[in-house]
Amino acid sequence: MIETVLIPAEKLKEVFFSVLLKYGFEKGKAEACADIFTSNSVDGVYSHSVNRFVSFVKLVEKGFVIPNNEPQKVYGMNALEQWDGKLGAGVLNAVKVTDRAIQIAKDNGMGCVALANTNHWMRGGYYGWQAAKKNCVFIGWTNTIANMPAWGAVDARLGNTPLVIAVPFRGEAIVLDMATSQFSYGALEMTNMKGEDLPVDGGFNTKGELTKNPSEILESKRVLPVGYWKGAGLSLLLDILSAILSAGYSTREITQRKTEYGLSQVFIAIDLQQLKNYKGIESCINNIITDYKQSIPGEEKEIIFPGELVLKTREKNLKNGIPVMKKVWTKIESL
Amino acid sequence: MIETVLIPAEKLKEVFFSVLLKYGFEKGKAEACADIFTSNSVDGVYSHSVNRFVSFVKLVEKGFVIPNNEPQKVYGMNALEQWDGKLGAGVLNAVKVTDRAIQIAKDNGMGCVALANTNHWMRGGYYGWQAAKKNCVFIGWTNTIANMPAWGAVDARLGNTPLVIAVPFRGEAIVLDMATSQFSYGALEMTNMKGEDLPVDGGFNTKGELTKNPSEILESKRVLPVGYWKGAGLSLLLDILSAILSAGYSTREITQRKTEYGLSQVFIAIDLQQLKNYKGIESCINNIITDYKQSIPGEEKEIIFPGELVLKTREKNLKNGIPVMKKVWTKIESL
Repeated sequence: MIETVLIPAEKLKEVFFSVLLKYGFEKGKAEACADIFTSNSVDGVYSHSVNRFVSFVKLVEKGFVIPNNEPQKVYGMNALEQWDGKLGAGVLNAVKVTDRAIQIAKDNGMGCVALANTNHWMRGGYYGWQAAKKNCVFIGWTNTIANMPAWGAVDARLGNTPLVIAVPFRGEAIVLDMATSQFSYGALEMTNMKGEDLPVDGGFNTKGELTKNPSEILESKRVLPVGYWKGAGLSLLLDILSAILSAGYSTREITQRKTEYGLSQVFIAIDLQQLKNYKGIESCINNIITDYKQSIPGEEKEIIFPGELVLKTREKNLKNGIPVMKKVWTKIESL
Repeated sequence: MIETVLIPAEKLKEVFFSVLLKYGFEKGKAEACADIFTSNSVDGVYSHSVNRFVSFVKLVEKGFVIPNNEPQKVYGMNALEQWDGKLGAGVLNAVKVTDRAIQIAKDNGMGCVALANTNHWMRGGYYGWQAAKKNCVFIGWTNTIANMPAWGAVDARLGNTPLVIAVPFRGEAIVLDMATSQFSYGALEMTNMKGEDLPVDGGFNTKGELTKNPSEILESKRVLPVGYWKGAGLSLLLDILSAILSAGYSTREITQRKTEYGLSQVFIAIDLQQLKNYKGIESCINNIITDYKQSIPGEEKEIIFPGELVLKTREKNLKNGIPVMKKVWTKIESL
């Protein structure tokens, strides 16, 4: 049993804010950054918000994240721009260039910002929601340090390269936010702590056999790509695109530096308001989702669309407070 | 043992061409279409070329594919255009709008054509190669008739929605061409015919258990999405995007009509030549692939990148002829 404490969202934000101020963030940036970390905690993506706050601050402390640097446009065509993240906070950089991609889309139908020299964007789904609120489709991804082997290999040379696709839906959004590994290291560690097995195979053991045992995978470090060879291929292509479109570092180069910083990311927005069928889009998506939800359930009681559970978690966490692991909270308070 | 005959590429193309003429294609269109079917056969993607030619012709015969219709631009912003495929041949429509997406990219950095009312594009990778030869990145996908259940469901309401991502590489391309199901129905049937098991789980049996037995999956029709719930979510999002961006039909609507026609597709091109780092892109990709190929092999002897084996197959098939299943060849000759 993992001990948790319930922290109200305002309290969490306040603590994040004061820590960030202490570590050198300007007031406006500390507030924006605290807001994103809080919002992602409220939405229940703890692994990429509250649980990662301490390591984020450590990266600031070590100079890998430079608190007050702002991303700059380096080069631009009509619909495609290359930006330099200047090693600023990944979440702030990502919010800013998502806004920029949306603006390009408002002007050109579609917009893309490729961002070099940035840092971990934490929960990619955040930017999907951000674009969806402006009536935009969002497609984005980030490379990472190597943490997943190529298909058939034992050593990690690929990242788990999260891919986000979002569309506006009923005032909120349908948001796919998926790593190209079947499970994150965070999920493996959490399942291991609970002494449980994964629901499906999550990697290989040291004998090269597929396994649901998280401890065996943590030992072999051979996490499973989604769809075996397919997810490995997807990760490779997304890393190549991240690096070449942004003129930034590839997973290979990031890995050589041992610490995960200076990432390359791609942000694409498409403005639905400009499409000739804009007025029919809401009912088109509604019809698809209604049909999808009418699926005949097998093992699962309910058929869920990507992002659907977030709203329920958000409501619950805003009402009851955010469940934070006690040891995590203690560390945050000690910063 | 499945009996095959070796057919030279020129002979294959000649036969395709004369059949297409017979079924009403104008000479230029028959030639272009025969060329694509042949090229995809030469490249070894038999399931989406020679093996599908008979059913393609049947669709022409039944009026679902209208041989001489051409896609038309319906609406356009700078970087994003909506086209109507007019139920023309899927491969010809796809080649034409890929060219258009490339042209938009040459003008705007990036270009997207969303295509409604089109037909099966056969092998999506073809358009990836097409864009790569013009120094463009390609990202594209198509929806399909429902053939895969949502995660946890037993009835198919999702398509297996192939996704293609390509980048130029050493005069050729790295091309990921993946369905969002772990195996195509074609692969399940082929493995079943051989009396073999799949290399990994490919779906559920009627008891709801994961299985490698293709016959059990063909019975349950519960094919496995890549990465379980992740591939199901990816398929859903790609279908939504196909339908809303093109103002075309969704998987739901296509499925209601029983026959797979009138599909919705998205073609995105990004022009690498316009990027400020264009001159460094080749060596960037080279470095990534060199590192990737240096992976320590586990079970597989060689670590392969997506599309790598195509060149070897192409060379072999051009030299020896294309291995065509005898019963397929007999049917084609009888058309």
